[in-house]
Amino acid sequence: MASRVTKFSKTIVPMMDRVLVQRIKPQQKTASGIYIPEKAQEALNEGHVIAVGKGLVTQEGKVIPSELKEGDKVLLPPYGGSTVKVDNEELILFRESEILAKIQ
Amino acid sequence: MASRVTKFSKTIVPMMDRVLVQRIKPQQKTASGIYIPEKAQEALNEGHVIAVGKGLVTQEGKVIPSELKEGDKVLLPPYGGSTVKVDNEELILFRESEILAKIQ
Amino acid sequence: MASRVTKFSKTIVPMMDRVLVQRIKPQQKTASGIYIPEKAQEALNEGHVIAVGKGLVTQEGKVIPSELKEGDKVLLPPYGGSTVKVDNEELILFRESEILAKIQ
Amino acid sequence: MASRVTKFSKTIVPMMDRVLVQRIKPQQKTASGIYIPEKAQEALNEGHVIAVGKGLVTQEGKVIPSELKEGDKVLLPPYGGSTVKVDNEELILFRESEILAKIQ
Amino acid sequence: MASRVTKFSKTIVPMMDRVLVQRIKPQQKTASGIYIPEKAQEALNEGHVIAVGKGLVTQEGKVIPSELKEGDKVLLPPYGGSTVKVDNEELILFRESEILAKIQ
Amino acid sequence: MASRVTKFSKTIVPMMDRVLVQRIKPQQKTASGIYIPEKAQEALNEGHVIAVGKGLVTQEGKVIPSELKEGDKVLLPPYGGSTVKVDNEELILFRESEILAKIQ
Amino acid sequence: MASRVTKFSKTIVPMMDRVLVQRIKPQQKTASGIYIPEKAQEALNEGHVIAVGKGLVTQEGKVIPSELKEGDKVLLPPYGGSTVKVDNEELILFRESEILAKIQ
Repeated sequence: MASRVTKFSKTIVPMMDRVLVQRIKPQQKTASGIYIPEKAQEALNEGHVIAVGKGLVTQEGKVIPSELKEGDKVLLPPYGGSTVKVDNEELILFRESEILAKIQ
Repeated sequence: MASRVTKFSKTIVPMMDRVLVQRIKPQQKTASGIYIPEKAQEALNEGHVIAVGKGLVTQEGKVIPSELKEGDKVLLPPYGGSTVKVDNEELILFRESEILAKIQ
Repeated sequence: MASRVTKFSKTIVPMMDRVLVQRIKPQQKTASGIYIPEKAQEALNEGHVIAVGKGLVTQEGKVIPSELKEGDKVLLPPYGGSTVKVDNEELILFRESEILAKIQ
Repeated sequence: MASRVTKFSKTIVPMMDRVLVQRIKPQQKTASGIYIPEKAQEALNEGHVIAVGKGLVTQEGKVIPSELKEGDKVLLPPYGGSTVKVDNEELILFRESEILAKIQ
Repeated sequence: MASRVTKFSKTIVPMMDRVLVQRIKPQQKTASGIYIPEKAQEALNEGHVIAVGKGLVTQEGKVIPSELKEGDKVLLPPYGGSTVKVDNEELILFRESEILAKIQ
Repeated sequence: MASRVTKFSKTIVPMMDRVLVQRIKPQQKTASGIYIPEKAQEALNEGHVIAVGKGLVTQEGKVIPSELKEGDKVLLPPYGGSTVKVDNEELILFRESEILAKIQ
Repeated sequence: MASRVTKFSKTIVPMMDRVLVQRIKPQQKTASGIYIPEKAQEALNEGHVIAVGKGLVTQEGKVIPSELKEGDKVLLPPYGGSTVKVDNEELILFRESEILAKIQ
């Protein structure tokens, strides 16, 4: 949690089954500092989970907690999600059911 | 509640799971009175919750109370909501499920 | 109920969760009789509830009574509703879930 | 029932929650025989219920009987319904939930 | 059943809540053999039920038997249904909920 | 089952409530070998069931077995279904609820 | 599992009832090394299941495990699915209900 407070000046608590995600940018230079030509950069639909809502609220008022937790690396769908700006960083809010997969 | 009575001449009680929100305007000058150029103003999809309905009425007639309460700061979706005018202020009514996140 | 009998020559009983509403016309002159210029007239999406149906009939055949009652002042959505004419007055029938808020 | 047998040569039993309605024609002359100019004729979306189905069959196979009964005067929606011709009279079949209100 | 075997060379058992219907053709000549001019022929959306499926299968796997049975005369909707050809006769398969009414 | 192994080199097990169907081709010559002119060939929307899935999985996780079984002759809808190619034969996968009727 | 670790550098765990599939490429040469002309290559909508999510989460929060498991050979629908790139291989994520059939 501490790292998150450091990272963003505001704490965003997604509503219901929403998940707040930060998209991973493709690597632009190697560890030794050489720039990777744009063509060689791996196309990415990956992100890190920044925050998770309390879960899906069913018609019976039951809460189904998310499969995901803060820090998870996830595979994002090509479309969808609501982009928000926090500290000039673009973050995306998805419904949990839109997230394609977890990457381990 | 007192502040709300002061703020608006009418008390609006949203129906069911609706939430009445006042959008936050971007800051236009600094504390010391210097105007912030429009470009530097932070884009905002944020609002304050003015009032909350009794909650979602399920098919079984059960009421699921809202996660939100008066005074909460929330992240608003780019589209949707019904705009109403109270005392020449524009307020917006959303279904609770449309609200993206709470900001703490 | 007496005032309603006086007001309209027919008693209209909305079906299910429907609500019969009479839209409030914007004030056209002040108490002292001075006409308010049209531009200064407050835009209104407000109405009075004239009659309320027995409530929403669920898939289980249960009836969920309306939150509203005759005489309530309500905030109306910009679209929707079915207009009917009673004694040359335009009234509107809404599903209860379309009504945005109660005004107190 | 007798009057209905007299009225139409066939007995139509609406399926499920359907309601068979005969639209009321606007009055064309006064009691004393004077023709009412077309402009003065009251616009009508009113009808008489001719027959009612056994009711809505729910997903659980339960039957929810209609709120309406033969002879009821009802307010009809501007659109919808299936027109059928019986003895050269146009009748309309509505789902009960499409009927706006009962008139008493 | 005997009459049905005589009528069609194949026995068609509709799936689920489907109903197999044969549309009634408008009468083209009177009993005494005089042709009825096309304009005088009564417009018909009527049919005879040829066969009925076992009923609607609900989400719980319960079967809700049809209100209709072989031989019933029914009022058909102007659109919908799947036309099939049996022994060069056009028959139509409807979901039971599409049938407007029974005629007695 | 044996005939099926002979017929196709692969065993296809439809998922859930899907049904694998082989469309019946219209008869092109009589038993005595005379070609039937194309116009006289009976139009066919008929097929044989090759394989049936385990059934519809409900929201409660219950499995509702199919009404159909391997070898059944069925009436197919004019549209829908997913065509697959097995041993150069075109087969079609339908949801069971799309199948119009069984032919006996 | 070992083979999978070898195959891809990342472990992808599909969310909910999603299934990760690798499409089978049509055979391009025979066992003896002769190239099969493109026209003779069998058209394929077949794939291997690489990974399976924990199952469908119902409205009641119950998990219905998938019918499929890692290694299954499946028939894929012509449309749908979300393509992702892992180690320069195109993989596809489907909801389990989109998979047409298992091939044995």
